[in-house]
Amino acid sequence: MDHDTAARTTLIRSASEAGSKVFATILTRSPISRIDIARHTGLSQAAVTKAVSPLVAAGLVDAPPVTQRDGLPGRPAAPVSIVPDAMVMLGIKINPDEVIAVATDLATNVLVSEQRALAAHDPETVADAVVDVITALEQELGDKAESIAGVGVAVSGDVDTSSGVVRASAIMGWTDVAFGAALQARLAWPVTLENDVHALTIGEHWFGVGLGTASFAIVTIGLGIGSGLHLNGQVVSGAYGVSGEIGHLPLAAPEHVCSCGRHGCVEAVASTSAIEAAVSAAHGREIGIDEAVRLAHAGDPAAEAAFREAARIIGTAIATLVNLAGPELVIIGGEGVSNFDLFEQTLRSAFEAHAFGAAARCPIVTRPHTFQDWARGAAAAAIQSLVR
Amino acid sequence: MDHDTAARTTLIRSASEAGSKVFATILTRSPISRIDIARHTGLSQAAVTKAVSPLVAAGLVDAPPVTQRDGLPGRPAAPVSIVPDAMVMLGIKINPDEVIAVATDLATNVLVSEQRALAAHDPETVADAVVDVITALEQELGDKAESIAGVGVAVSGDVDTSSGVVRASAIMGWTDVAFGAALQARLAWPVTLENDVHALTIGEHWFGVGLGTASFAIVTIGLGIGSGLHLNGQVVSGAYGVSGEIGHLPLAAPEHVCSCGRHGCVEAVASTSAIEAAVSAAHGREIGIDEAVRLAHAGDPAAEAAFREAARIIGTAIATLVNLAGPELVIIGGEGVSNFDLFEQTLRSAFEAHAFGAAARCPIVTRPHTFQDWARGAAAAAIQSLVR
Repeated sequence: MDHDTAARTTLIRSASEAGSKVFATILTRSPISRIDIARHTGLSQAAVTKAVSPLVAAGLVDAPPVTQRDGLPGRPAAPVSIVPDAMVMLGIKINPDEVIAVATDLATNVLVSEQRALAAHDPETVADAVVDVITALEQELGDKAESIAGVGVAVSGDVDTSSGVVRASAIMGWTDVAFGAALQARLAWPVTLENDVHALTIGEHWFGVGLGTASFAIVTIGLGIGSGLHLNGQVVSGAYGVSGEIGHLPLAAPEHVCSCGRHGCVEAVASTSAIEAAVSAAHGREIGIDEAVRLAHAGDPAAEAAFREAARIIGTAIATLVNLAGPELVIIGGEGVSNFDLFEQTLRSAFEAHAFGAAARCPIVTRPHTFQDWARGAAAAAIQSLVR
Repeated sequence: MDHDTAARTTLIRSASEAGSKVFATILTRSPISRIDIARHTGLSQAAVTKAVSPLVAAGLVDAPPVTQRDGLPGRPAAPVSIVPDAMVMLGIKINPDEVIAVATDLATNVLVSEQRALAAHDPETVADAVVDVITALEQELGDKAESIAGVGVAVSGDVDTSSGVVRASAIMGWTDVAFGAALQARLAWPVTLENDVHALTIGEHWFGVGLGTASFAIVTIGLGIGSGLHLNGQVVSGAYGVSGEIGHLPLAAPEHVCSCGRHGCVEAVASTSAIEAAVSAAHGREIGIDEAVRLAHAGDPAAEAAFREAARIIGTAIATLVNLAGPELVIIGGEGVSNFDLFEQTLRSAFEAHAFGAAARCPIVTRPHTFQDWARGAAAAAIQSLVR
């Protein structure tokens, strides 16, 4: 980390609550005038001007040049902007079979990306791969690597961000793994470990759909079924680090046993592996998801039934989420979205059957998130932990 | 409304965002110093001082007398306090068989209360009863009636607060009833119509458990099953006016048809009338809730089974809520709490079976809310709508 990056990091970390709010507002809403920052944060214009000055001096925020005619510097109506290149953040998404990594600027624009296949997914092997992939990113970044200010790591499951512990990840087969500390011991930058869907939600909240809506939910379908909630302008992270666990709502029949060990979880019927298991059982041989998709498209009754049942449970789970939390919009993402035609009709019918009253007005849209988008979410989580 | 009350109402309604934040903070955290108000709101001390002055001048906030030795008025460390008597609010809770009404001060302390039995619960009869009970409150208040500044009305169901319409209330048998407008036409003060559990949550948020926790959920059991969520320091009201509808999560078997017409709702198994129906069916005669409770306490297997099944569904629903929203604490209230011994063991087992990971740490406590507490919640909702 070069001197400028270190100074910027210190400035952001040591900011007052007002200073943090001002920086976060400029970060996500550039260009924005000081008047609008004051409006948005509820701070006085004097407090905004006071908070902006050191950010400009440190090169994190750009104030426009003052012209002879325009008046004085710091005039409230002139817009200020984030300097995206002022820092580089790394974001890592961990899957059981690969590690996807990006280096981004402060607006989570991807500068370079890398991925590594994993031969195994025990914590040591994965940590080695993360360090390896970061080394590759550093080389590609060249001089810009000096501007790296933080690393965000996204992993599926019950993740305690404050302690950096993966308490339970069924997909990875991990229980109580101090993965954050293991990486921190080997990396020079602050490491933020986050549940992967929370990270995706933070990314959408700061740099995506969150800017246009007061509340939204992301539901991811595929290998795992997860969700993230953004209500009253904030991401819901859960008092005990758990929230949005839509994959583990007990909406299926109890004879379906989940990989987490509980009975009747949504994932036990609707995850990729649950669909594979149902189609395999019906055909008496091992059938992967790609073949299951082909069979369903070809009208195979067992494959169609498996997708239909998954869609019914997911639609019911979304109605449950909407009845409780009342978001303005539900976004379905995750790799399962690429076959959304197999889910859509049944999913929407189940949602309509169980959404309560006006909650049924909540639109459900899809958005294909690539794994690189998940890695960008991890970078956004690292930026957020810097600003807090 | 006398001149002082009108002036205070205007001042609160026309406050800037900063002014509203300052008033809300003093309202809920009195006594509090200007320094702590600044800390709590993220505003500058100058902005706080500026916002406090007109509140003191209007008699809404009390600033301590200045002594010779202590220094100047408005010194930041001296605490200021709300003047509870500065306004009177009315809160009304509507049940199918009665109307409960309170007049409170600005801290929702009950000054006087009234109730009226309802011979019928069509909207006209209920509106007449509300007007009648308010007239009685006015008489009891005497001169203080001049300080009434607003009326909050709490009713079960899908309530659109912004338009004052009860979109659907199965318990009342109402669909698309413009009850807010009907009352407003007959009352001199602003009327706020609110879902009853939301109102209870607003009351706890502003004047109860909300002051000590960053997030909580209230789950009410009894005639209806409802919930209210308070996350990141704010009540979750739902983008379409629906949230916390825990009674209509599809967690029961689909053959249970709910009074709302949907299949498998929690209420279809766990409400008072569902328990009565199950016990009545087993015994081949009409059995009310009081007798069902006595039978269960006496070891009657059918009654025990009905409460057990209700408790299992409620515990599962609470796990669902906690897995999604991650509150710090769940408070069970409602009239069903008086027989909580019949629910507790099965409810906690079901919660533990389905709470995901660290979410299981969320404590579940009971709190007996009287119907008068619900009416106080309605008064709190009226105060909140004034401050917004």
